[in-house]
Amino acid sequence: MTGFVKMHGLSNDFVVVDGPIDPDPAEVRALCDRRTGVGADGLLAVSRGTAGGALRMQYWNADGSTAEMCGNGLRCVVRYGVDRGLVEAGELMVETPVGLKAARVLADGDISVDLGPVRVHQSTIELHGRPWSTVDVGNPHAVTFVPDPAGAPVTTEGPVVETDRHFPNGTNVEYASVDGDRIVMRVWERGVGETQACGTGMVAAAAAARRSHPEIDRWTVTVPGGTGAVEFDDGRVWLTGPAVTVFEGVWAQ
Amino acid sequence: MTGFVKMHGLSNDFVVVDGPIDPDPAEVRALCDRRTGVGADGLLAVSRGTAGGALRMQYWNADGSTAEMCGNGLRCVVRYGVDRGLVEAGELMVETPVGLKAARVLADGDISVDLGPVRVHQSTIELHGRPWSTVDVGNPHAVTFVPDPAGAPVTTEGPVVETDRHFPNGTNVEYASVDGDRIVMRVWERGVGETQACGTGMVAAAAAARRSHPEIDRWTVTVPGGTGAVEFDDGRVWLTGPAVTVFEGVWAQ
Repeated sequence: MTGFVKMHGLSNDFVVVDGPIDPDPAEVRALCDRRTGVGADGLLAVSRGTAGGALRMQYWNADGSTAEMCGNGLRCVVRYGVDRGLVEAGELMVETPVGLKAARVLADGDISVDLGPVRVHQSTIELHGRPWSTVDVGNPHAVTFVPDPAGAPVTTEGPVVETDRHFPNGTNVEYASVDGDRIVMRVWERGVGETQACGTGMVAAAAAARRSHPEIDRWTVTVPGGTGAVEFDDGRVWLTGPAVTVFEGVWAQ
Repeated sequence: MTGFVKMHGLSNDFVVVDGPIDPDPAEVRALCDRRTGVGADGLLAVSRGTAGGALRMQYWNADGSTAEMCGNGLRCVVRYGVDRGLVEAGELMVETPVGLKAARVLADGDISVDLGPVRVHQSTIELHGRPWSTVDVGNPHAVTFVPDPAGAPVTTEGPVVETDRHFPNGTNVEYASVDGDRIVMRVWERGVGETQACGTGMVAAAAAARRSHPEIDRWTVTVPGGTGAVEFDDGRVWLTGPAVTVFEGVWAQ
């Protein structure tokens, strides 16, 4: 881990290194510290796949915990793999902690990743006076619809919902509003806090919104960090957005 | 500015580049953005001196504004200059926006910088029910003493004091407690917000505390980011602490 790349997808930012690696949680926390380390929402490691994928993705949250999936991170993994010559642009498969995922490098540089299958539980649960849709995108999500996400109690209620007894493994929490095929949302990420973007959260919100509008296949989803697209296509769910390399770094020691 | 170094002094963190430079405020803001840029409290540029100093320091806050002085930044400038071979370790002079400053590279790697002269105004002012000492360390400071800085209203009252009409150019704001020769403090930096450390703020707090204890020459000052020392010596004021290089970076494009 002497060299690394700093990337972001919709302002969800990552330290990306060559993998495979097996870091201590304390190492991950030090690396992700925004003052005394590089600073990031999480750590990604990228290597050639060995189990059916062209690439392998490993992911840790900033607090050192492992995470099942990260949609914005997966886009960065694909961009890193292409830029490093590990794979060619086009459509490819990536090995992730939740299995093989398909990805496409688009002509404009944006990257689409297939985050399906998505399971939206049929029943909603009531918490803190709100109905919540629980959605499984490889990782758990609880989505509630509000008139104005900008005024939602993301930082106060989010951590309480995250650790509610309904979610024995914790949950990511989304507050979203819907207008036609456009979703605006904020997210409280499990183990991280409020973030500028969360790819699987964008998919979860679109999947929850689609229960009321099954005729809409393509949703535009805006998070504080930017705008992406979620497309439902014959059982697959594609998340499209940018993956930007900011700089390359080498440790001082 | 294709290459840079990320450094921190007591967790007060900086992007450091070869100078001299003349960046737009927007460039500084982009560089200091903690998600889509490198992320830092400010930008430092270091070059060989041309006006009596071995080194020249330029400094911008994260919001793109220029700052008169930054004690933790000055220590990083000296470490950068030594590491890059611009100067030799030992005692040297640095050209700063407030004139020439003396610095010493200590045997243990810590760096001392002379931030004097310090002017403590003889009268305190009353604001928000508290007495404030106003101190000029090349930049303006307002220091108040409280029983417990951990519980002080740094983030709520700090920005109000910063822009009070008593300070036409704004002020840095410090909440400090004193126990013997030990000071514990938190700081609200003008144009930045609460930071983990502020070198001139540490000097300002020690100078204000010394009004009641002129017999104490050497103060140990703890900020959230770590501990340093402030020493008053024959009209000079030395701030001693670490200056750490975290990584070297190169822009992706």
